[in-house]
Amino acid sequence: MRISDLSRRSGVPVATIKFYLREHLLPPGERTGHNQAVYGDAHLHRLQLIRVFTTIGQLDLTSVRRLLATVEDDRLPLTGIYDILNQVLAPAAEPVAGESPALAEALADVDRLVRAEGWQVRPDAATRAHLATVLSAMRRLAGDWTPDSLDEYVKAADRLVRREVDELPPDPSDRAAAVAHSLLLGEAYAAIRRLAQEHHVSRRFGEGRAL
Amino acid sequence: MRISDLSRRSGVPVATIKFYLREHLLPPGERTGHNQAVYGDAHLHRLQLIRVFTTIGQLDLTSVRRLLATVEDDRLPLTGIYDILNQVLAPAAEPVAGESPALAEALADVDRLVRAEGWQVRPDAATRAHLATVLSAMRRLAGDWTPDSLDEYVKAADRLVRREVDELPPDPSDRAAAVAHSLLLGEAYAAIRRLAQEHHVSRRFGEGRAL
Repeated sequence: MRISDLSRRSGVPVATIKFYLREHLLPPGERTGHNQAVYGDAHLHRLQLIRVFTTIGQLDLTSVRRLLATVEDDRLPLTGIYDILNQVLAPAAEPVAGESPALAEALADVDRLVRAEGWQVRPDAATRAHLATVLSAMRRLAGDWTPDSLDEYVKAADRLVRREVDELPPDPSDRAAAVAHSLLLGEAYAAIRRLAQEHHVSRRFGEGRAL
Repeated sequence: MRISDLSRRSGVPVATIKFYLREHLLPPGERTGHNQAVYGDAHLHRLQLIRVFTTIGQLDLTSVRRLLATVEDDRLPLTGIYDILNQVLAPAAEPVAGESPALAEALADVDRLVRAEGWQVRPDAATRAHLATVLSAMRRLAGDWTPDSLDEYVKAADRLVRREVDELPPDPSDRAAAVAHSLLLGEAYAAIRRLAQEHHVSRRFGEGRAL
């Protein structure tokens, strides 16, 4: 198909497609003449993936490039690709003066949660540090908050994610799609959670009060 | 306390605090002399909230300003504040040429999920449209995917969020803290989900393979 068809079918403007081509996020089409090229379904698929990462994952182009390069590196197992996804989704927070003891305590909380469920998670996983930052912010905001209430989160996540991963094909040949799938399911849960929140906040606090 | 103490206790650099003061995100301190002012615990608390919104919520200053202004508007009930939070967390995706039938179908899927659980969610809630965008991207990536598998997400979210909301004080006087709390818990779940993913992907695909 021509670039105009690629644009129409993907919903991505021609100028944006040309930009992705220049930035080597999208491989070149097959030249058919001076200033003319045709594109295949692989281009369409890749364009859809880039859109998922940029619009729904809200990743910048540097992160998308890193993710796509990882996916194409056949030496890396699927686990390594998820690892890169987690790194770009949870950029390491800058260490903040004065919060190191609280952060160390929060890291111990994360260890406990992971161990309690028997999860095998690398000690240097980006997500561990990110979760610890979140937990220490919780403690600063509400002094009496304890991470015990997260046990239920851990159990729910274990059940939902086990099923997601078991539903992947035995040898996912389209590794980029597998990673995008998991990013989309994470975002779907986050949105569903906010719908639940609208309902329950309104149930508890909204009775008879006008918006 | 002086601005240097405020910086030390919050971990936020003095230059950033001065920037927030200039931008009226932080109310001025009490003047004690030429070029001198003292700050109280309310300033520290507000600084911690701004940090939660910017670093963990990854919101830009325009969104933070909008959220804080909403929190201080006593005419708005708590439900209205969550609504603004959901709007800034799920910016409306630009409509994309050619995807409107798929998007309409996805919106019908969202309606079904919400109705099945008996949730009361406003028809124009920002999160509905956001979830529909996610679901239509899922369908584009995997033609045989159906939203039936989200029933479990809905049930898990209902259970976890009901408890979160019921644990808020009967009349949360610190409404900004309530909203920050809910943002942090959402991020905590997202991080826990990624830890579960690392474990289950490695369990299924990582055996004996080096990272």
